Amino acid sequence: MQNDETFGGQVDTQHFWRDLQHQVCIGALPGGGLGRLALDDNDIRARQWLIDEGHKLGCQTFYDLIGNVYLRREGLDPQLPPLLIGSHLDSQPCGGAYDGTLGVVAGLAVLRTLHEQNISHPRSIEVVSWTNEEGARFAPGTPGSAWFAGKRELEEILPLCDDSGTTFGDALAHCLSVLGDSNAIDRPDSFTPHAYLEVHIEQGPILDASGLPVCAVSGIQGVNWYRFELVGVANHAGTTPMEMRYDALMAAHTLISELKSVIERTAVQHQDNQLRFTIGKFALAPGSVNTIADRATFSVDLRHPKAETLAVIDAEFQQLAQQLWEGCEATLHVSSRVPPVAFDEDIVSLLERSIEQYAPGAPRLVSGAFHDAIHIAHLCPSAMLFVACRDGLSHHPDEHVEEQDAAPAVRVLAQTAFELLHQ
Amino acid sequence: MQNDETFGGQVDTQHFWRDLQHQVCIGALPGGGLGRLALDDNDIRARQWLIDEGHKLGCQTFYDLIGNVYLRREGLDPQLPPLLIGSHLDSQPCGGAYDGTLGVVAGLAVLRTLHEQNISHPRSIEVVSWTNEEGARFAPGTPGSAWFAGKRELEEILPLCDDSGTTFGDALAHCLSVLGDSNAIDRPDSFTPHAYLEVHIEQGPILDASGLPVCAVSGIQGVNWYRFELVGVANHAGTTPMEMRYDALMAAHTLISELKSVIERTAVQHQDNQLRFTIGKFALAPGSVNTIADRATFSVDLRHPKAETLAVIDAEFQQLAQQLWEGCEATLHVSSRVPPVAFDEDIVSLLERSIEQYAPGAPRLVSGAFHDAIHIAHLCPSAMLFVACRDGLSHHPDEHVEEQDAAPAVRVLAQTAFELLHQ
Repeated sequence: MQNDETFGGQVDTQHFWRDLQHQVCIGALPGGGLGRLALDDNDIRARQWLIDEGHKLGCQTFYDLIGNVYLRREGLDPQLPPLLIGSHLDSQPCGGAYDGTLGVVAGLAVLRTLHEQNISHPRSIEVVSWTNEEGARFAPGTPGSAWFAGKRELEEILPLCDDSGTTFGDALAHCLSVLGDSNAIDRPDSFTPHAYLEVHIEQGPILDASGLPVCAVSGIQGVNWYRFELVGVANHAGTTPMEMRYDALMAAHTLISELKSVIERTAVQHQDNQLRFTIGKFALAPGSVNTIADRATFSVDLRHPKAETLAVIDAEFQQLAQQLWEGCEATLHVSSRVPPVAFDEDIVSLLERSIEQYAPGAPRLVSGAFHDAIHIAHLCPSAMLFVACRDGLSHHPDEHVEEQDAAPAVRVLAQTAFELLHQ
Repeated sequence: MQNDETFGGQVDTQHFWRDLQHQVCIGALPGGGLGRLALDDNDIRARQWLIDEGHKLGCQTFYDLIGNVYLRREGLDPQLPPLLIGSHLDSQPCGGAYDGTLGVVAGLAVLRTLHEQNISHPRSIEVVSWTNEEGARFAPGTPGSAWFAGKRELEEILPLCDDSGTTFGDALAHCLSVLGDSNAIDRPDSFTPHAYLEVHIEQGPILDASGLPVCAVSGIQGVNWYRFELVGVANHAGTTPMEMRYDALMAAHTLISELKSVIERTAVQHQDNQLRFTIGKFALAPGSVNTIADRATFSVDLRHPKAETLAVIDAEFQQLAQQLWEGCEATLHVSSRVPPVAFDEDIVSLLERSIEQYAPGAPRLVSGAFHDAIHIAHLCPSAMLFVACRDGLSHHPDEHVEEQDAAPAVRVLAQTAFELLHQ
């Protein structure tokens, strides 16, 4: 990139990369990767690091009732709602070094560029690290952003327990007391930002396969979780003729064929390759080599960016569960339904205008994974950027991002932030 | 049945039924059914009961090196190899009252009829109770008959352990010391009988569904056990497009469709409804709702009365395991191959001639389950009788046989034994 005179072009991406590598030493696992569970000692140290970096850049620093940490660079007009940039610093138990942290450190790079270039802007800017995005220690995830957006109450979050019996409330109290001893300011309430931006690794293989470093994200898929159960009759594998069986495995097999047909038919009808259909759990009972199974249970994870498409398939699934399968009764439990989120078209377009400079022809993706943006999008115009990660691998110590892929993403973030700060 | 002047017609079937009901009080479970594990105290008491009954009928009683117990009624020519009738007195942990015991008590009824009618016969007759047919405490099952037929050595049987760590050898030593204190005679060696008959409940639904009490069994199906494994790549259920997946569950699904086709095609080609194909175990890893599975493992239990048919399917299975399935590699482990056994045609015909009187038109079945006869058939001409059991249920406290179904089976056994004693 020669003579990139944009604000994005001014970002010291090498400094950003050093910051990122340094940041993930906090909680680094001996064999590689990151083990920084929400509100554990490393996660608290990661917040302190962020607060310290904010102070170096002349920011005010805040924490709220749920431990979200904010770095604020004041705009010329403090009355204007601030631009918010964020992601998370917690990881999976054996996670990678980029999932979440890259997005927070990218926000820091924007603050550093504004600071070093001594740029004034009408609107204030805040960089946030949301608490417990992963949900690996306290499930479900994203309570920090959900609480901020008014989607979940503290009362339902605080009693959540980790595997050792510690509650979220106790772990949070410890975190807040440490933050209280820092120079960060206790700011209990949330607010409505002007807009929200989040950079995250794709956690999927599309960018990596296409050789592009970065792309805009236009929304987050809706996710329905199902549990199908088929009940047959256990019997002797040798003495029961095939035509006298009520075999739950064979029933599940035939039903899965039909579910696949529904998915394939819908994909063809809608000329749509965005459906995701996954059976990740499957159990047979009694589970003996020479006994015909009397119970088969399997999960379905169904995702699509459009609520209507999910609803059509949902109705077909419900209907299939009414039928007998190889003589076995079926039941369908809906474990959860999370509706899709569409990001703000103006902000997505703004991101894409800047992306064109660094990754011409980049696709517009829909996120298949959840992110904190799923909640913030209900509060203010929001959008995300994806960075390519090797083989789409994440939640794994081998998760990997190339510096030359992350750098343009930070430039796009900075440039778009700069434009939003002047809106 | 009016004026049944045959020897079979002379059996006091009510006495037989009382004996059977009385016998299964030893080890009866509080909620119904029988819990009499091989070589436990109840199983040893059941042997003592059998020895006592033998003495009442004027028999000599023996036990051998592996605890098999024999009641012998001497023929006029002690040099002729004896006719052998047998089954087993051990049960599953929560088993039924008929599986095994019915066959031993049926043999006793033949001895009683000979005794009460004071009938002399050229050939001697022995009734045997084989040790540990079930294999529920010490796996694998049928070591008593296998040792007798020279198919397994004591050295490989004695070290087998039950769940509490007790060896077969220690449990057997205790049993033999109790039997040594009885009036039974220690007879270490096995011998080659003239012929072997075994009555057993069908453990399948065919007789019950057809309303027939009894039928001849022409053999025991061969059984191949397989383990298929499919290895894909674990990945995020939301972010990985369908066409970029190596989904082990979907691979298993497609492979199972093909295995079913092989079975159905073979059944049509051979105009054969004797194939049995069962997938009783199925496991997915890592087993998470929102993770594409990277490993699917399932068992196949394949049965047929003809070795050639099993070999044809075996070859097709091996070939399918060479292919990729939805991009995933397959491996096929053969866990075991037990070849089919065909019973002696002359003895099966002899049984059927007598069956015609009590169950005209009864089918000739092939046993889908193992029995001690599978080993003895290699030693001498052998055949079995099946008795109808309700819904084909066995290995369950609700296992049930009607007295009016058992009675003709005992008459057929007695009549056939009578004819074989005079051969």
